[in-house]
Amino acid sequence: MRIGVLTSGGDCPGLNAVIRSVVHRAVVDHGDEVIGFHDGWKGLLEGDYRKLDLDAVGGILALGGTILGSTRVQPTRLRDGVERAKGHVAELGLDAIIPIGGEGTLKAARLLSDAGLPIVGVPKTIDNDIASTDVTFGFDTAVGVATEALDRLKTTAESHQRVLIVEVMGRHTGWIALHSGMAAGAHAIVVPERPFDIDELTKVVGARFEAGKKFAIVVVAEGAKPREGTMAFEAGGTDVYGHERFAGVARQLSVELERRLEKEARAVILGHVQRGGTPTAYDRVLATRFGWHAVEAVHRGAFGSMTALRGTDITLVPLAQAVEHLKTVPAERYAEAECVL
Amino acid sequence: MRIGVLTSGGDCPGLNAVIRSVVHRAVVDHGDEVIGFHDGWKGLLEGDYRKLDLDAVGGILALGGTILGSTRVQPTRLRDGVERAKGHVAELGLDAIIPIGGEGTLKAARLLSDAGLPIVGVPKTIDNDIASTDVTFGFDTAVGVATEALDRLKTTAESHQRVLIVEVMGRHTGWIALHSGMAAGAHAIVVPERPFDIDELTKVVGARFEAGKKFAIVVVAEGAKPREGTMAFEAGGTDVYGHERFAGVARQLSVELERRLEKEARAVILGHVQRGGTPTAYDRVLATRFGWHAVEAVHRGAFGSMTALRGTDITLVPLAQAVEHLKTVPAERYAEAECVL
Amino acid sequence: MRIGVLTSGGDCPGLNAVIRSVVHRAVVDHGDEVIGFHDGWKGLLEGDYRKLDLDAVGGILALGGTILGSTRVQPTRLRDGVERAKGHVAELGLDAIIPIGGEGTLKAARLLSDAGLPIVGVPKTIDNDIASTDVTFGFDTAVGVATEALDRLKTTAESHQRVLIVEVMGRHTGWIALHSGMAAGAHAIVVPERPFDIDELTKVVGARFEAGKKFAIVVVAEGAKPREGTMAFEAGGTDVYGHERFAGVARQLSVELERRLEKEARAVILGHVQRGGTPTAYDRVLATRFGWHAVEAVHRGAFGSMTALRGTDITLVPLAQAVEHLKTVPAERYAEAECVL
Amino acid sequence: MRIGVLTSGGDCPGLNAVIRSVVHRAVVDHGDEVIGFHDGWKGLLEGDYRKLDLDAVGGILALGGTILGSTRVQPTRLRDGVERAKGHVAELGLDAIIPIGGEGTLKAARLLSDAGLPIVGVPKTIDNDIASTDVTFGFDTAVGVATEALDRLKTTAESHQRVLIVEVMGRHTGWIALHSGMAAGAHAIVVPERPFDIDELTKVVGARFEAGKKFAIVVVAEGAKPREGTMAFEAGGTDVYGHERFAGVARQLSVELERRLEKEARAVILGHVQRGGTPTAYDRVLATRFGWHAVEAVHRGAFGSMTALRGTDITLVPLAQAVEHLKTVPAERYAEAECVL
Repeated sequence: MRIGVLTSGGDCPGLNAVIRSVVHRAVVDHGDEVIGFHDGWKGLLEGDYRKLDLDAVGGILALGGTILGSTRVQPTRLRDGVERAKGHVAELGLDAIIPIGGEGTLKAARLLSDAGLPIVGVPKTIDNDIASTDVTFGFDTAVGVATEALDRLKTTAESHQRVLIVEVMGRHTGWIALHSGMAAGAHAIVVPERPFDIDELTKVVGARFEAGKKFAIVVVAEGAKPREGTMAFEAGGTDVYGHERFAGVARQLSVELERRLEKEARAVILGHVQRGGTPTAYDRVLATRFGWHAVEAVHRGAFGSMTALRGTDITLVPLAQAVEHLKTVPAERYAEAECVL
Repeated sequence: MRIGVLTSGGDCPGLNAVIRSVVHRAVVDHGDEVIGFHDGWKGLLEGDYRKLDLDAVGGILALGGTILGSTRVQPTRLRDGVERAKGHVAELGLDAIIPIGGEGTLKAARLLSDAGLPIVGVPKTIDNDIASTDVTFGFDTAVGVATEALDRLKTTAESHQRVLIVEVMGRHTGWIALHSGMAAGAHAIVVPERPFDIDELTKVVGARFEAGKKFAIVVVAEGAKPREGTMAFEAGGTDVYGHERFAGVARQLSVELERRLEKEARAVILGHVQRGGTPTAYDRVLATRFGWHAVEAVHRGAFGSMTALRGTDITLVPLAQAVEHLKTVPAERYAEAECVL
Repeated sequence: MRIGVLTSGGDCPGLNAVIRSVVHRAVVDHGDEVIGFHDGWKGLLEGDYRKLDLDAVGGILALGGTILGSTRVQPTRLRDGVERAKGHVAELGLDAIIPIGGEGTLKAARLLSDAGLPIVGVPKTIDNDIASTDVTFGFDTAVGVATEALDRLKTTAESHQRVLIVEVMGRHTGWIALHSGMAAGAHAIVVPERPFDIDELTKVVGARFEAGKKFAIVVVAEGAKPREGTMAFEAGGTDVYGHERFAGVARQLSVELERRLEKEARAVILGHVQRGGTPTAYDRVLATRFGWHAVEAVHRGAFGSMTALRGTDITLVPLAQAVEHLKTVPAERYAEAECVL
Repeated sequence: MRIGVLTSGGDCPGLNAVIRSVVHRAVVDHGDEVIGFHDGWKGLLEGDYRKLDLDAVGGILALGGTILGSTRVQPTRLRDGVERAKGHVAELGLDAIIPIGGEGTLKAARLLSDAGLPIVGVPKTIDNDIASTDVTFGFDTAVGVATEALDRLKTTAESHQRVLIVEVMGRHTGWIALHSGMAAGAHAIVVPERPFDIDELTKVVGARFEAGKKFAIVVVAEGAKPREGTMAFEAGGTDVYGHERFAGVARQLSVELERRLEKEARAVILGHVQRGGTPTAYDRVLATRFGWHAVEAVHRGAFGSMTALRGTDITLVPLAQAVEHLKTVPAERYAEAECVL
């Protein structure tokens, strides 16, 4: 068989592990040919690719980023995107395409699949917000990086008797905030799923100081917002330099908490370090398994599907179902975290 | 309520996170009293304990080891062990005991539970060999430590054109070998579940050199053995100093592979570093959730059970079922690893 | 003898290692008594302290922060600060004070020493800008944290074909930028010692893209400024929320480079993670040696001095000389870095 | 100019950083040509090399091992080695050779230099035993790896109330043992420079248990030996499998201490992980500076010399002086460590 693979959307530790695994399983075990499209769907639309043999994927297992490059181009947003994709698939004699990507990518994959292309998707998001899989690779690495930073920040907050508000990734869901906050023993965790009440948050943090503690760590997901009407808040938009204002919520919270608590408060924005670099062992294993099972699905002709982790098993779910809704932090998971705050 | 907690058996990253979580959930949310027995079951048998309040568990979340100490003493191996345990539970007015431990501990817990004691167990093993839970805390940390070591060893093996045989923990099961080997891209993985054929192993490693590669990494679980009759092998026993011979298999394999391949081969035994030190974020979250749910089980009166992870949920399983059989590496998981070797 | 120790100024990995070393050397080897003042000079001014015995410093060697707390209060800025300090020294019967701190602290130490107090200082700054010692503890940790972040950011920059401008600590000197930039293979390093020419910087970064590279990493010290007249620049001041504008230069550079290069550029501000958490082995050894030698100096009566590293030796330098001038990055060190950019 | 570079002897983190730096400085700044000999001196003797341009050294800065390979072949041990080396230098039109290696390599370099070859050496050893430089790259990484392992082992020793004897690298000198032992707060440090008295060591460790502590960590350099006549000891030689017995001293010590203290004692041998993998930021900076200055020395015609760190400066020392004697741990450095044991 001839299989095309591509990586699309934001960077995510483990992408290279999937690519490597696809090549190993397909080339070595099945005698397939694998090509890699450059820069996500763009490569498919423009017929820009290279052959991937064992040498091409040597030494990339633990490498962050993606050797194939990535863009956010979606074929379904172009007028003739679907036609061009179909054209190149036919021209290149491809028996299957394995796109590795997040929500947007999987939605495009579904449309292409509906249009008749043989597709097996592999989900990818550090945010862990794809509902049909227990977890996605990249998430464990992001949580690990954030936790390590929080471990470091704790001692500096303590020495200086400060409130530190640490902003982690998560525009729509608070998974990274929840897990890193639990893992590092944060004193408050603020997630997009539960608009925060600034009075309540002030009370929680203030209670620590009243109990004689000298510092507090608040973890906040970048997409968190105050409950309507409780606090002036500038959501999103661009900053004074015309850049996307990703740093918004921690900065605004730090000002507000400093004023209310009369304690020094500082914002720390972890940013891109959460999505780059060497994946954890957990993510490498998961990514490798996804790659293996994607090739198996191709050989079984199970198109229109996506690999997913359920318990300890890798299963396939229909692409249609995969992107139906966002996996948000449920109330009971948030409650677990609250007890140890 | 009054709850006693204890840690028993080998060291495992995450024990302190469970203790802390039990105390936070029980004391803060339920208004319970918590005591911690010293040195595992021994503390229960001797009535040796201390009170655990919030201060007692401050700062221990990321700490390796166990603040309560641990021994391998099992109450059920003592003639009057069960009676003494019951006596102290009555005397101390305990409403529940939460033992945190591995297979042996959970078996003892089951017997004590059958004898009428109110017990909710928390499973613990870096080996990941407890069948009724998807995974146990400590495993992710052990795999992480082993993977990091393998990452380091790869470059040194490559520079010196050697075969390195790296022995990781796992007496009865090969989970650490499987996951760290997959994560680090080992070239062969040897597990206790599949007695190895030395001829076959020589062929696999030799094929790498024939293909022009200059080194190979073999990961072997400490409990691995050759297929009967294929190779002289000294299993277990004690070494010349009367110490347990935990280093056996890698050493013997290195001698054999060196002789057969005529390549320099060296054994590296990772040993105790795999079970000590700061737990990964993954293990801290899992351990914290186990502690939380153990307290909930106590309050619901769900005794004779054990916390378990199933997918993304923490559930309870009967202690009887929990220790029925060992979770070994199944053939299909091993097959996934083989493709990328 | 009776020795008082205190930590003053910003957080710095290794402070606890010094405290522990002072206690071990003084108490165990010399039979001294050691007390620790709380919150820096503040504790001395207010007579707020606690006794430090071996138990008090157990387990703190690898701990970030300072068990004694720290503030930026300087006794010499208070009208009666010197007199109050002298008063408490007399009252407590102290034979020596060992203040551990940066430039400001050491200046105060000098004034107190000139006023007759028996002082041996220990230099501390993650910025590495104290001229009379080869290096200070904390610097290696800060460089390590920054380098690890840069390693991670490289893969994400590469996958997304971006320019990342990474701001590291260093208000007056560029040591952290220089070392982390060299260690991580940054493509441009911008330090306060050399006001940057935006045209030149654009050319350097642009040349990479012309050579076919797909990304660039620029490391910039927070105190870096453009050469006068070459670019509109808002130095320091406060941001729109009334907070100190520590994030200034990277943000402004990213806007400017994006506009000029027509490539996506993003700012990442590493912030406080650089000064918290577990110190590297290097910093723990240096801090331990500083503590040991400070006690020796006290016993030799070598007051008015500061410990310093010269080559592999710990020596003493007069406090007067210690704070004479800032150690800036010299042209020849910058040149070494340039070649590998 | 035309420059040849080679790496010889044992693996050492930072080798690739030197190679990269030589190429950057020579090719970019001086317009030189650089070739790399394969597998150490062997490549020079056999004329086996490849051209090294910027692309050839892309992405290797943080990579462990050496892209050129390494063997322990010494040209001066072959009958016609010097002549063959001279022959290839002439044939290839080389203006200089930069060998990167340890004691043996530098001795060979000296002899080749005496025989008229234009050589600038770069010292390399994780053991830090080259007298004419403050420190060598690789040492900081080895100490860091050992310290991290000790940090982990401490918690497991504590939980199990054990004595752990941890063997680190250092056949002739105890630098790694000294620094990692100080950094991790070991309770005894045993180095080759001071043959140990088993009675004394037993007393030191025993005193901890008498003082109520529950565990002890002993760090021992692989080359440590007992004071003559104090303990039966099998030095070096080969083990029962015909392999070099590098694990000797820790195993023997653990048996002896267990017997004498009546406490469980276990040996852990860290082994090759200490010399592989990603170098620390410190080692990357030092290695990069060595490479830069080696090229400068070549251009100044300063042959027969070796780069060295003195304080914060890179200087040149004559090869003759460089290898005169081993840098051992002096009594005063050992004394510093003792106080905190």
